[in-house]
Amino acid sequence: MKFSKISNAIQKGSGQVELRGWIKRKRDLKGKIFLLLRDETGEIQCVCDSAKASSELFKECSHSTIESSVELYGTLHKDNRAPHGIELEIKGFKIVGLADVFPIQKDFSTEFLLDVRHLWLRSSKMRDALKVRATVFDAFRQFMKKKDCIEVAGPMFVTGMVEGSLTLFKVPYFGKKVFLTQSSQFYLEVLMYSLGNVYTIAPSFRAEKSKTTRHLTEFWHAEVELPWIGLDGVMDFEEELIKFITEKVIKERKKELKALGRNPKTLKPVISKKFKRMKYDEVLEIAREKFPYLKKGSDFGEKEERELTKSMDVPLFITHFPRSIKPFYHRPNPKNPAEILCNDLLAPEGYGEIIGSGERTWKVEVLLQRMKEDGIDPKPYQWYIDLRKYGSVPHSGFGLGLERLTAWYCKAKHIRDVVPFPRTINRVYP
Amino acid sequence: MKFSKISNAIQKGSGQVELRGWIKRKRDLKGKIFLLLRDETGEIQCVCDSAKASSELFKECSHSTIESSVELYGTLHKDNRAPHGIELEIKGFKIVGLADVFPIQKDFSTEFLLDVRHLWLRSSKMRDALKVRATVFDAFRQFMKKKDCIEVAGPMFVTGMVEGSLTLFKVPYFGKKVFLTQSSQFYLEVLMYSLGNVYTIAPSFRAEKSKTTRHLTEFWHAEVELPWIGLDGVMDFEEELIKFITEKVIKERKKELKALGRNPKTLKPVISKKFKRMKYDEVLEIAREKFPYLKKGSDFGEKEERELTKSMDVPLFITHFPRSIKPFYHRPNPKNPAEILCNDLLAPEGYGEIIGSGERTWKVEVLLQRMKEDGIDPKPYQWYIDLRKYGSVPHSGFGLGLERLTAWYCKAKHIRDVVPFPRTINRVYP
Repeated sequence: MKFSKISNAIQKGSGQVELRGWIKRKRDLKGKIFLLLRDETGEIQCVCDSAKASSELFKECSHSTIESSVELYGTLHKDNRAPHGIELEIKGFKIVGLADVFPIQKDFSTEFLLDVRHLWLRSSKMRDALKVRATVFDAFRQFMKKKDCIEVAGPMFVTGMVEGSLTLFKVPYFGKKVFLTQSSQFYLEVLMYSLGNVYTIAPSFRAEKSKTTRHLTEFWHAEVELPWIGLDGVMDFEEELIKFITEKVIKERKKELKALGRNPKTLKPVISKKFKRMKYDEVLEIAREKFPYLKKGSDFGEKEERELTKSMDVPLFITHFPRSIKPFYHRPNPKNPAEILCNDLLAPEGYGEIIGSGERTWKVEVLLQRMKEDGIDPKPYQWYIDLRKYGSVPHSGFGLGLERLTAWYCKAKHIRDVVPFPRTINRVYP
Repeated sequence: MKFSKISNAIQKGSGQVELRGWIKRKRDLKGKIFLLLRDETGEIQCVCDSAKASSELFKECSHSTIESSVELYGTLHKDNRAPHGIELEIKGFKIVGLADVFPIQKDFSTEFLLDVRHLWLRSSKMRDALKVRATVFDAFRQFMKKKDCIEVAGPMFVTGMVEGSLTLFKVPYFGKKVFLTQSSQFYLEVLMYSLGNVYTIAPSFRAEKSKTTRHLTEFWHAEVELPWIGLDGVMDFEEELIKFITEKVIKERKKELKALGRNPKTLKPVISKKFKRMKYDEVLEIAREKFPYLKKGSDFGEKEERELTKSMDVPLFITHFPRSIKPFYHRPNPKNPAEILCNDLLAPEGYGEIIGSGERTWKVEVLLQRMKEDGIDPKPYQWYIDLRKYGSVPHSGFGLGLERLTAWYCKAKHIRDVVPFPRTINRVYP
């Protein structure tokens, strides 16, 4: 029986249950052994009383260790002193896998916990965060279904770059050199001409040398392309999406959010309030008060975004960035070609960028001009350029870092707190 | 308006509609221009009659080319001569993106179609196959939800191998050498101790040199790990899963299957009939009739699997392979250590292996012995070995090639016919 079903069982009067799980805590107290048993759904206190149990049963319970896997059965009693108010009196007990001395006790360094990540993932903190993560992924897909978006996938091995050569991983590939994808955007643009609204959730790779609390060398990237839609339309879509995911997460993961120190009520404004939409120039003006070194053409980094959003309670759209700081595929504003019809969406409470988005350049001559400005050889992009030659349409799209979104919901201090096996410049084990 | 909504519109008497799409075919006939317009939902014949239209309108229609994107409006009429029995009389017409001469006309080589994959994906054949693919992914996840499986993800950058060193991609990683993951299985085994039933759908990479109709260097791998479950249990789970996905695909993609040459009725036995379960030894006996060179310890390759399954109408489980041909993580049968508690699931009609599965070795001494037999250095696997030291439990799992499954449903001749951007030894463009 799963522990989450236990309170139902006790209410129905079915006092005897069989359980399987792992021992999270163990205490000997005046001839009684208290075992806190965990499974993926929760925890329950189990007790073996030497005054009542057979000596064999008591011995087997004594023999168990932290993180041993066990099978047991017994009777349930309400007990206000026990965690969750229920205690199981052990009638039968079997150690399935006896654990060696568990290396994680308490007060270990971050580095050590990363070394034993395979064991640290058993902590309730990681378990709860990963459950929120799963709900974020699921809610994203539910929204896509609602919007008639078809799931597709770009390749992981590619020959062009989307986000600049500095963060490319190169892979030796049967005598050729290929890259790991930085984004599936260009491939989604291809598929849009066949399937209409399309999306993918897939790994993207960035050889990030910067050590920040929000960058990893691989991350799960949700990407969407929408034909026949412009900047305002795609922002409406994104806002509706974030509201939808937030609502699902609050509804389905209340317990986990609370355990992680996030009061779900503090996320309610995200659902009820309209997101602010500000142009880059306005935001720059505000940011300059705190960071006078910023000037027109400066991008906002982690520090600036943290400051900008730390006292907000809903996400912020920043639109119309200068042409010089956005990649070639972004569409310049025909009314003011010095600015780009794009938006970044920043999470509140200091979390910063979760979405990069905008209209795509869809006229071939504009695209070639932009590539020239950026010094990009058009050859490997011939297929991408082709899309502008054969029935091009106005379109927009975006990329959402699902783990950054999860980190914000979970109030995580670091992105790795919501990623099972985070990869950074120094970390590929376990 | 999406074309799929048109027959509703005409039945409701709302004869005038606005449409957007791409020109799939164009014909001039006695002063009339016939345009077959496509979008992601279907096709509709549109006509501009010089006798009725203004000269400007007729000129704009004349000017359009194959694969040009257009916006138009007009009135709908029933017309039995038109494809799908409906014709639109064009009242207004605008070319959005005028297409150059479309390079794909007809009778092109496979290689050429791979070179212009970004355009070939617009064919109804690729569109339909990718829709089936999307439904397979979705149905898989729905089943996982039903079974309380939590979605997780292993890393793409790894330091150990799951499937042998010959097919490893090595990536230069900040001065270290790391591999691209061949399977997320070991990481799912970690997460099972925290989250119970777990699954992922993620890319796996194999540096496959063999040119077959079912191997790619990257593929989307659905993987599942289930604690407290044995070989029979995991086979029941797999059978229920395949039945569930098949039912969804038949229900939601009937039109696409038919268009691809698959009669959905031929898939019905998969839902209604129990899958056969045969031991390796039995299967070997049968296979020997056709392939006398096979002997105990031979594995079945593409050719043998094709022959074995070509006249079947439901998948076949092959169980209990010899120890010598299965990787170290498979659990030997305690009653007969020369055989392994594992199963492959083979799709019928010659498609062959879609699932590799089995119990995992969960005793540390057995695992170390198996690694020794295979000549594997335990060092990079220390974390995997740890799982057997800290509360190990019996468990099973499997990996399913979602694109192989899709290929079978679609009756595809080659796996690449259901993958948007297939990667092989010679192919990384577009």
